[in-house]
Amino acid sequence: MATQKRTVIYVSDGTGITAETLGHGLLSQFEGIEFRPLRFPFLDSEDKVRDCLARINEVCQREGTRPIVIMTQTNAELSGILHQADAFFIDLFDAFIVPLEQELDARYTRAVGRSHGHANPEYNSRIAAMNFALAHDDGVSDTDLKSADIILVGVSRSGKTPTSLYLSLQFSLKAANYPLIPEDFERDHLPSRLLPYRSKLFGLTIAPEQLHRIRNERRPHSKYASLENCRYEVAAAEKLMRREGIKWFDTTARSIEELAVQLMQELNLER
Amino acid sequence: MATQKRTVIYVSDGTGITAETLGHGLLSQFEGIEFRPLRFPFLDSEDKVRDCLARINEVCQREGTRPIVIMTQTNAELSGILHQADAFFIDLFDAFIVPLEQELDARYTRAVGRSHGHANPEYNSRIAAMNFALAHDDGVSDTDLKSADIILVGVSRSGKTPTSLYLSLQFSLKAANYPLIPEDFERDHLPSRLLPYRSKLFGLTIAPEQLHRIRNERRPHSKYASLENCRYEVAAAEKLMRREGIKWFDTTARSIEELAVQLMQELNLER
Repeated sequence: MATQKRTVIYVSDGTGITAETLGHGLLSQFEGIEFRPLRFPFLDSEDKVRDCLARINEVCQREGTRPIVIMTQTNAELSGILHQADAFFIDLFDAFIVPLEQELDARYTRAVGRSHGHANPEYNSRIAAMNFALAHDDGVSDTDLKSADIILVGVSRSGKTPTSLYLSLQFSLKAANYPLIPEDFERDHLPSRLLPYRSKLFGLTIAPEQLHRIRNERRPHSKYASLENCRYEVAAAEKLMRREGIKWFDTTARSIEELAVQLMQELNLER
Repeated sequence: MATQKRTVIYVSDGTGITAETLGHGLLSQFEGIEFRPLRFPFLDSEDKVRDCLARINEVCQREGTRPIVIMTQTNAELSGILHQADAFFIDLFDAFIVPLEQELDARYTRAVGRSHGHANPEYNSRIAAMNFALAHDDGVSDTDLKSADIILVGVSRSGKTPTSLYLSLQFSLKAANYPLIPEDFERDHLPSRLLPYRSKLFGLTIAPEQLHRIRNERRPHSKYASLENCRYEVAAAEKLMRREGIKWFDTTARSIEELAVQLMQELNLER
């Protein structure tokens, strides 16, 4: 049976990132269909919208199937023009903004890109958090661990860096990370710099086989990457974390999104 | 007039990140209302769902206003239980999955977290892209610029790092960045390592006043951070980019999301 192929068109007068994120979430529920994305961001004038309309109809004619249009168009007039296209529409504003206006007894402000503009204090705190994560990656600096919201520990390549960055970008969390290295296992205690911050420490661990694969890509055939050494480091790190009472998560089969959300839950429980 | 305050509850049997992203996009359209988020991810059993139901009703009673529940619950039965709550619902699956099933003539797979699991090749390419961005941050390594999808150039602190990381995480793009430093301006040509990759180069620039503020936070009262030096570097970098025919973007009033989407557009035009 031939695979069904469908073009998905993301349309927005902003970046279209909200539309795209929703699209991924919805369309990933349908197996065995190949979705090809096309992006039309920043459609903020009638000219641009009419160009896009023509492109949508062109896709429809060429493919013989109507494309799926996922849109966050805040301007009702421009949105109306787009709806003339021969397409299947998922219109976030149509579906939710009008009912929300009633519920909140307020009018929406038709402000493009408001969710991530410089005027938005949340945006600025997100960038500050990302800079914090970069400055405190892999124990690079411990001058400011006091102001960290969370400190991740674990062996090299256990997933600390991507998780820290994701926590900063998605949740504006100041996330530092600190590697556990063979010296720590020999001393059999936590790096002393971390001791004052025990309540903010969470561990990451990983299956030795997967760690071996990941490290081997970086430094093939090194002792560092050998399965034997990976087994030793993971076992020693888990022993250390168990003794120090650090709660840890296994990153082997978890995505960074899942990990990040689980860590957020832990922080909420603690607070 | 007292500010309206509303609790927003994100509910999902996955991470809830799709729900939260949509929520930000929608609610940021309503000015002057204070939204307080509560998150209930990973609700994958009847017990957890009933706990959540009780918490939603509790919020409603305590606050005297029904909360806004934004949900991506793939399991119809669990979703039904949640809908008994006294709340205003924005239900992404209700609104869009059933019409999509008809349009695609396919059944959805009720697969939690499918959009970012390890089984998903897109997820793996996203992590690979992020590792690439980290390994090629600030000209750290030029061993692999050949395989970069895009190389950002600009003066120190013009926004290269956050933009590169965002491009990698959101669009799985291999984004490297390379600083333009005073030596480049004196020589008056591009760093020679970049010359083979001219077609992948894009510039970032920034208002000298803002650069001055950003650098001053890092190294107060340094020559590096002085307004005079910032003016010199920005002017010299723009001159260099103009002469080399490198298209550049001003990051002063743009969010990284906007920048990232604009760079994506440029790449699509080039390809």
